[in-house]
Amino acid sequence: MGNCCEHFRNFFCGNKNTNVRVSLPAVCFVWQIAMIVLFGVFIRYDEESDSHWSEVKKHHNISSDIENDFYYRYPSFQDVHVMIFVGFGFLMTFLKRYSFGGVGFNFLIASFGLQWALLMQGWFHTLDHSTGKIYIGVESLINADFCCAGCLIAYGALLGKVSPVQLMVVTLFGITLFAVEEFIILSLLHCRDAGGSMVIHAFGGYYGLAISWVLYRPNLHQSRRLNGSVYHSDVFAMIGTLFLWMFWPSFNSAITDHGDGQHRAAINTYLALASSVLTTVAISSMSQKKGKLDMVHIQNATLAGGVAMGTAAEFMITPYGSLIVGFCCGIISTFGYLFVSPFLEKYLKLQDTCGIHNLHAMPGMLGGFIGAIVAASATEEVYSKEGLISTFDFEGKFENRTVGTQGGYQAAGTCVSIAFGLVGGAIVGLILRLPLWGGPADDNCFYEEVPEEEESIPPILEYNNHMIHKHPDM
Amino acid sequence: MGNCCEHFRNFFCGNKNTNVRVSLPAVCFVWQIAMIVLFGVFIRYDEESDSHWSEVKKHHNISSDIENDFYYRYPSFQDVHVMIFVGFGFLMTFLKRYSFGGVGFNFLIASFGLQWALLMQGWFHTLDHSTGKIYIGVESLINADFCCAGCLIAYGALLGKVSPVQLMVVTLFGITLFAVEEFIILSLLHCRDAGGSMVIHAFGGYYGLAISWVLYRPNLHQSRRLNGSVYHSDVFAMIGTLFLWMFWPSFNSAITDHGDGQHRAAINTYLALASSVLTTVAISSMSQKKGKLDMVHIQNATLAGGVAMGTAAEFMITPYGSLIVGFCCGIISTFGYLFVSPFLEKYLKLQDTCGIHNLHAMPGMLGGFIGAIVAASATEEVYSKEGLISTFDFEGKFENRTVGTQGGYQAAGTCVSIAFGLVGGAIVGLILRLPLWGGPADDNCFYEEVPEEEESIPPILEYNNHMIHKHPDM
Amino acid sequence: MGNCCEHFRNFFCGNKNTNVRVSLPAVCFVWQIAMIVLFGVFIRYDEESDSHWSEVKKHHNISSDIENDFYYRYPSFQDVHVMIFVGFGFLMTFLKRYSFGGVGFNFLIASFGLQWALLMQGWFHTLDHSTGKIYIGVESLINADFCCAGCLIAYGALLGKVSPVQLMVVTLFGITLFAVEEFIILSLLHCRDAGGSMVIHAFGGYYGLAISWVLYRPNLHQSRRLNGSVYHSDVFAMIGTLFLWMFWPSFNSAITDHGDGQHRAAINTYLALASSVLTTVAISSMSQKKGKLDMVHIQNATLAGGVAMGTAAEFMITPYGSLIVGFCCGIISTFGYLFVSPFLEKYLKLQDTCGIHNLHAMPGMLGGFIGAIVAASATEEVYSKEGLISTFDFEGKFENRTVGTQGGYQAAGTCVSIAFGLVGGAIVGLILRLPLWGGPADDNCFYEEVPEEEESIPPILEYNNHMIHKHPDM
Repeated sequence: MGNCCEHFRNFFCGNKNTNVRVSLPAVCFVWQIAMIVLFGVFIRYDEESDSHWSEVKKHHNISSDIENDFYYRYPSFQDVHVMIFVGFGFLMTFLKRYSFGGVGFNFLIASFGLQWALLMQGWFHTLDHSTGKIYIGVESLINADFCCAGCLIAYGALLGKVSPVQLMVVTLFGITLFAVEEFIILSLLHCRDAGGSMVIHAFGGYYGLAISWVLYRPNLHQSRRLNGSVYHSDVFAMIGTLFLWMFWPSFNSAITDHGDGQHRAAINTYLALASSVLTTVAISSMSQKKGKLDMVHIQNATLAGGVAMGTAAEFMITPYGSLIVGFCCGIISTFGYLFVSPFLEKYLKLQDTCGIHNLHAMPGMLGGFIGAIVAASATEEVYSKEGLISTFDFEGKFENRTVGTQGGYQAAGTCVSIAFGLVGGAIVGLILRLPLWGGPADDNCFYEEVPEEEESIPPILEYNNHMIHKHPDM
Repeated sequence: MGNCCEHFRNFFCGNKNTNVRVSLPAVCFVWQIAMIVLFGVFIRYDEESDSHWSEVKKHHNISSDIENDFYYRYPSFQDVHVMIFVGFGFLMTFLKRYSFGGVGFNFLIASFGLQWALLMQGWFHTLDHSTGKIYIGVESLINADFCCAGCLIAYGALLGKVSPVQLMVVTLFGITLFAVEEFIILSLLHCRDAGGSMVIHAFGGYYGLAISWVLYRPNLHQSRRLNGSVYHSDVFAMIGTLFLWMFWPSFNSAITDHGDGQHRAAINTYLALASSVLTTVAISSMSQKKGKLDMVHIQNATLAGGVAMGTAAEFMITPYGSLIVGFCCGIISTFGYLFVSPFLEKYLKLQDTCGIHNLHAMPGMLGGFIGAIVAASATEEVYSKEGLISTFDFEGKFENRTVGTQGGYQAAGTCVSIAFGLVGGAIVGLILRLPLWGGPADDNCFYEEVPEEEESIPPILEYNNHMIHKHPDM
Repeated sequence: MGNCCEHFRNFFCGNKNTNVRVSLPAVCFVWQIAMIVLFGVFIRYDEESDSHWSEVKKHHNISSDIENDFYYRYPSFQDVHVMIFVGFGFLMTFLKRYSFGGVGFNFLIASFGLQWALLMQGWFHTLDHSTGKIYIGVESLINADFCCAGCLIAYGALLGKVSPVQLMVVTLFGITLFAVEEFIILSLLHCRDAGGSMVIHAFGGYYGLAISWVLYRPNLHQSRRLNGSVYHSDVFAMIGTLFLWMFWPSFNSAITDHGDGQHRAAINTYLALASSVLTTVAISSMSQKKGKLDMVHIQNATLAGGVAMGTAAEFMITPYGSLIVGFCCGIISTFGYLFVSPFLEKYLKLQDTCGIHNLHAMPGMLGGFIGAIVAASATEEVYSKEGLISTFDFEGKFENRTVGTQGGYQAAGTCVSIAFGLVGGAIVGLILRLPLWGGPADDNCFYEEVPEEEESIPPILEYNNHMIHKHPDM
C-alpha cells in the first residue's frame, strides 16, 4: 500500500490523479460496511417475501400464491433493472474514449445507490414505527432502482469530467435529496407521479445541471477533441437507447395500481414514445445539410415522450392525448439539442455532456405540468366514481380533495422537484470543489486509458498498416 | 429552410439526394398528425385498461386484479417488443457502412408502423359497430408489433437501397395490406396462425422480395464492395440474432390461448429453434473450406425453426415433431443462403440484402403447410374434446368444421398470404419507382456518412497524445 | 464433399485443422437425429402444457388459467434464457480475435445441451415409471438451461483452445455428469440448491478446470499475444456481464417455491450482487498503478455475489446477510484474478482463459458452505413451522430431518459436486486427448479468421471513396 503518510496527505490535499488508488477503495469499503450495519439494524423482509407468508395468506384469506405482489411487479422490475444498468449505461458509451467509463461508473453508482435508496426511502416512506424496521419487497426494489435513475441522469451532465470518488459523493447526496423531495411531493403534497416525471427526471436533470454549472471548467475546450463519438461507439449507444425506449412502458407502469392502472400506463407510454420518434426524425432531418439524421438526436430525443408521460401515464389521458405528448416532446427535445445546449454552454457556462437538459430536465418539467392539467380536468364520468378515487388515491385525510386542487398540488410538486434539484445540486457542486476528492485534470477529461498491450505490443505488420493506411472501419 | 420553390420542385421531380431534407420531415409530420386525428376519432382504452375496470370486475365476477389480461400477456409483449426493435434492428447492423442506418431506420419504420397497425387492425378486427370505436389493450399492442414485423422483414430485402421516404411508403402500404390479408386469413378463412408463419413471415417475405425485384438496380454491383461486413459489425448483428432467437418462444406464444396454449407454444418453439442451430452449423461447416462457420448462416438460418413453428406452435405437434421441424428448416434455410440467393440474384435479378427469402419467405410458407398438416391430423383422443374446440376455436358459425376442412383452409390461407405479398409488393414497387420519392443513387447504396471529426483528425497526432497523457482511473 | 476416403482417414487420425469440415457436421447430424428419436420415445407435454389442461383444471378444482405454472415461471425462464445465450455468450467476446467464436460456440453448445439435458434430467428426476415417459413443462426448460450453464462455465476455461467437435464432446459428457450429480445431491442427499451454487457453479467450474489441466499446452504462450482484449471487445463483454448481473435474481429464484420463496430469492440475490460491485471496484482500484480499474475484474468479479447466493437465496439469510456474502465474494473473486490465477498457471500448469476458478468454482463452493451454515442455523421462530417445512421440503421420508442434519447434508452435497467436477473433468480431458477430435494447433488458439475482404482491400483507396461519395441520408 506504499507510504501511508503520503497517501494521507494526498487524500486531503487532493493532489490530482494520484490518490484515487487510496480514496476510491476507502470510500467503497467504508460505505459498503456502513450499508451492512444499517441494513442489519433496519431492513427486514416484508410479509410477502418472508417465510411466514403461508400464515399471512390464511390471515388475509388469500387463496393463491399468484396473488403475491411478486407476480404483479417482478417482470416490470426486471425491465426497469435493464434500463438502469444497460439502458443508462450504454447510452453513455457514445464518447470516443470513454465507452468503458460510461458503462462502468454507471454500474458502480447504481450498485451503491440502490442500497442507500432502500434505506433512505424506507426511513421516509415505509418505516414501521412500532418495530423500528423497514420491510422490503419487490416494490421497494423498483423504487430503489428509480432513485438510482435520478443520480444516473445527473451523471449524464458530468460524464467524463469528475473522478469516481466525486461520483460516489454525488450519488450519496443525490439519493438523500431524492428521498426528501419524494417524501414532500408524494406524501405531504399527495401528488401522483408513477413514472417520476417530477421526482426522477426533473429533479435528476436539474441536480446534474446545477453541479455541472458549479464545476465549470473554462479550459475544457482544450480536450474537447476527445469528446467526440466514433462510429462503433455510436452503435453501442443505440443499445442503450433502444433498451430504454422499449422498456419505458414498464418503467412508467411498474408501481402504478394493480390491474387497469398498470395496463393503461403501459399503453400510454408505448404510444407517446412511438410518436416522439417521428417528430425527432423530422426535426433532425430538417436541421442537417442534405437531410441526414444526427445520431445524437436519435439516441436521445426519441425518449422524450416517455419522460413526459411519467406523471400522466396512469391517468385517463386517452390514446390520442399520449400521441400529442410524444409529438410535442420529440420536437422540443430535438430543438433543445440544436439550440438550447449550445446556448447554455456559451452564455451560462454550462457543460452538459449528454444533453440531459433536453432529455430529462425539460421533458420532466413538462411532464409534471401535463400531469397537473390532466389531473385537474379529470371527471367522474370518464374515470367512474371508484376509478377516480383509486387513480388519485383520494382516501384517508385526502378524501375530500377535488381534482382541481389535485392539479394545483401536482404543479406545486413539479416546482418543488426543480427547486430541490437546483439548490441541492449547487450545494453538492460546492462540496465537490473542495480539494478533497481529486477531480481529473482538464486534459484527462473524456479520456480513458487503453489496455497497454493493445497499444504497446508491436502488432507487427498490422500496426504499421494502421499508421500508413487509415483503417476503414473504426 | 432555404428556397421553398426549389424544394417544391425537387420534391416532385425527385432530384436525387437533395430533397430528403424536406420530404422526410414532411412525411413524418403529416403522417403523425394524421395518426393523432384518427386516434382521436377511433381509439379508446378497452375495459381492462380503463378506470371503469373495478365495475367490470364486479360485473363479470372477477375476483382478482391478476385476472387482468395485462398479467397474462405483458411479459410476452415486452419480449416481442425487444425482438422488433433490438432483434430486427441489430440483425441489420452487419453491413460495414450501414450499421446505424440498419438499426435507425428499423426504429423509424416500427414506430410509425405500430400506430398505423393499431388503426388498421382495429378497423378490421375489433371495431365496435355500435359505438364506432376501437378498444385497445395489451393484446392490441402485441398485434401491432406483429404487424410491424411484416414490414421489417420486407425492409431486410431493401436494406441500404431505398431512401427513408420510400421506406415510409413501403410501411404505409405494407401495414394496410397486412391488415387485409390477416382479416381474410384469420376471420374469413378462420385459420389459426398464432406466431404468424403465414400472415407475418410468408407475407412479409414475399412482399419485400417483390418490391426488390421491381426496384432492381442493374449497376448495383459497382458498390457491392461496400455491401460487406466487418468483424465488429458482425458481432453487433449477433446481438440481433440472439435476442430474436431467445424471445421467439414469446413471439409464438404471445397471443395464443391462456393457459396450456401459451405454455405449449413456448415449449414447441424453444425446441424447434434449438434443433435449427445444430443443422445450420452442420451445413455451414460442410460448405466452407476448412470447415469454419459462415457468420451469415449463424446469424440467420438458426432462426428458421422459429419462423416455421409460427402456425403449429399452439397445436399438439409433440416435442419431437418440433425438433423435426427445426431440423429441416435449419438445412433448408442454410441451403437457401448457399444456392438459392445467388440463383435469384443471377437469374431472377432479385437483390435480397439480408436473405429474407431464406429466413422468412421459404420457412414461413413451409410453416403454413406444416400447420395445415398438423391441423388436419388432429384427433379428439390427442386433444380431448374440449381441447380440440378451444385450440381450433370451433365455435359459433365454425362449430361444425372438421379438422380435415380446417387443414384445407390453413393451406389456402398460406396461398393467400403469398399472393398478397407478391401482388401487393409488385404494385408498391411500381409506386416507389415514381420519381416522387428520391431513392439513393447506386453508388450511395449500403453507405453511410461517418462523422467528419473521426476521419479528419490526423490520427498519428492523436495516437501520440494517448501515449503521453494517461487517465488516472480506468 | 471431396475425397471420402481421405476424410475418413483424417477423421480418425485427427489431422489437425483439416477434418472439421467432416467431423463437425457429422457430430451435429448424428446427435440431432438421436435427439429426435429419443424425444419421440420419451418426451411428452406435461399436464399444464397439454390440451387436456381444461380437464385437469376441473379435476384439481383450479379456477383460473393464471394458476398454470407458465405464469409463475415464464418471465424468470426468459431471463435465464438471456443469461445463457447473451450473458455467457457475450462475456466470452473479450478476446481480440475470438469474439465471434466466443458467442457462436456458446450458442452451439447451449442449443445441443438443452436437448440432452431435457432427456437426462427427465430420466433421473421426472420419469413416470408407469408410462415410461418424461413430461415436460416450463420448469423443465429452466432446468435444461441451468444444466447448460454448467457446461458453458466449463467452456470458459477452454475458450479458444479446443475445437468445436471437442466442445460437443465436453457438452455431452458434461450434461450427463451434471444430471447424475444433481440426482445424488438433490434427490438422494435431499439438499436444497435453487440457484445451483453447488450443482451448477462448483461442478461446472471444477469440471472445466480439470479438463483444462489435462489438456495443458506448454507452448501456448507463443500465441498468447492473440489472447488479449481490445477496447471494443471489452465493451462487448460488458453486455454479457450486465445481462448476467441484472438477471441473476431471476436465475436464483426461477425454480424456488411459488410465492415468498421466489420473492425472497430475488431480493437476496439483488442485494448480494450490489455489494459485490463495490468491493470488486475497491480491490481492483487498489491493485493497479494510479488506481484505475481493471476491466477483467469489473467484467467478472462483480458477479461473484450472485454465484455465492445460489444455495442460500431462498433461505431466510436476511438482507444484511446477503450484503455480507456479496461483500466477501467480491473481495475473494478479485483476489483470485490477481493472485490465484497466475499461481495456478505457473505452478499447476492450469490455463483458465476466462478465470472461471475465480468466478464460478471458488464462489460456488463457498456458496455451498454458506447454504449449509444458513440451513443449520434455521429456527422455527424465524421461518414459522409451516415455512420451515416448505423451505427445506421436510416432507415424505425426510419428515423428521432436523435443520442440523440438513446443514450437514448441504455441506456433503458441495463436496460431491466438487468431486464429480474434478474426477469427471479429468476423465473427459483424457478422452479429449484421443487424436480423434482434431484440436486446433497452438498457433490457431484464441484466433479466428477474419473475412478476407476486410483485410485485403487497400484501405487507403476506400477512404478516398468515402470522401467523394456521401450518403444522402444519415
